[in-house]
Amino acid sequence: MASYIAPIERLIEEFRKIPGVGARTAARYAFACLNLTDDEAVRFADAIIGIKRDVYKCPVCFGLSAREGECEICSSEKRDRGTVVVVEDAKDVMTMERVRGYKGVYHVLGGALSPLDNITADDLTVKELVARVEAGGINEVIIATNPTPKGDTTAAYIARLLEGKGVKVSRLAYGIPVGADIEYADEVTLLRAMEGRRFFGN
Amino acid sequence: MASYIAPIERLIEEFRKIPGVGARTAARYAFACLNLTDDEAVRFADAIIGIKRDVYKCPVCFGLSAREGECEICSSEKRDRGTVVVVEDAKDVMTMERVRGYKGVYHVLGGALSPLDNITADDLTVKELVARVEAGGINEVIIATNPTPKGDTTAAYIARLLEGKGVKVSRLAYGIPVGADIEYADEVTLLRAMEGRRFFGN
Repeated sequence: MASYIAPIERLIEEFRKIPGVGARTAARYAFACLNLTDDEAVRFADAIIGIKRDVYKCPVCFGLSAREGECEICSSEKRDRGTVVVVEDAKDVMTMERVRGYKGVYHVLGGALSPLDNITADDLTVKELVARVEAGGINEVIIATNPTPKGDTTAAYIARLLEGKGVKVSRLAYGIPVGADIEYADEVTLLRAMEGRRFFGN
Repeated sequence: MASYIAPIERLIEEFRKIPGVGARTAARYAFACLNLTDDEAVRFADAIIGIKRDVYKCPVCFGLSAREGECEICSSEKRDRGTVVVVEDAKDVMTMERVRGYKGVYHVLGGALSPLDNITADDLTVKELVARVEAGGINEVIIATNPTPKGDTTAAYIARLLEGKGVKVSRLAYGIPVGADIEYADEVTLLRAMEGRRFFGN
């Protein structure tokens, strides 16, 4: 017989699908779920369904939104549409939002250039970023890709594409620990990185 | 505005309810769920509901079962009902089952004695264990409570209760690292601990 009974084994398998969750951690989580009340289990299950059902992609910045159409940030009167922070992933938008000082908008690339993984500019929203810049009204593009080789390559590529288009292009300063993921940077480090941003060319 | 949009925030809160999962880990898990297909999300959600709906408690050993009534182990013709391993938690049964050599049955106490937490023998299935022994047919009771002060106290308490009832009472050997939880012991260590078990009194 299996080490675990079927319904438990099944939930362990589901938890194991989360990147970074191994067999023992998944088992621990599954047993923790056994201790949920029926109501709590329904709420948890519904939250998983909900994250697929209730999350939309903004057609302007490609960030995540709780509604269809332009997202809360792109459509807010309080945001400065003249400044665009370019990030790799939608979750980086939420990380950047923790820097309370920032009032501009975003552009989510959907990844970083990676020739080895066959990820080219066509797989990212680079074209859409260029179109946004060419449509006017943007003064500065702050590239906040991860401080990794891929992120750096992507930043340099975008900076070159935007040359001569009348916008300042900058990159987050290396206040963020090199080699890490910006998701794990703390607010103060992120703010320092914003303040110390370096400009490409002009 | 919140750092995360509502459906994501909601799932993060649910993940945070799992003991040992902090804010960042929960956020990472929630974003991983965003990458599930709709089908995968439904399967995950259903597995959570299922672990509440499809897991029963065996009326004999108090272990977990995928069906009502006696569990797969208690009702199996291949198991030796003369040997009972006593564990604190149902998940310890599954850990013990990884020791392929063991062919006896189990008794799940539902915890360990802990005067500080107000957990007494009445909160555990101690009475039911004594009744099982008194009903006859059991030759040996192997106490496999955790090698912690609480587990040791519980083992000694049960050993005393079973004195003179015509069964051999033993305790897993300290092959298991002291102070740890048996859930984390590897199979070889568990087998050694079974072989080196010490007998109480007779």
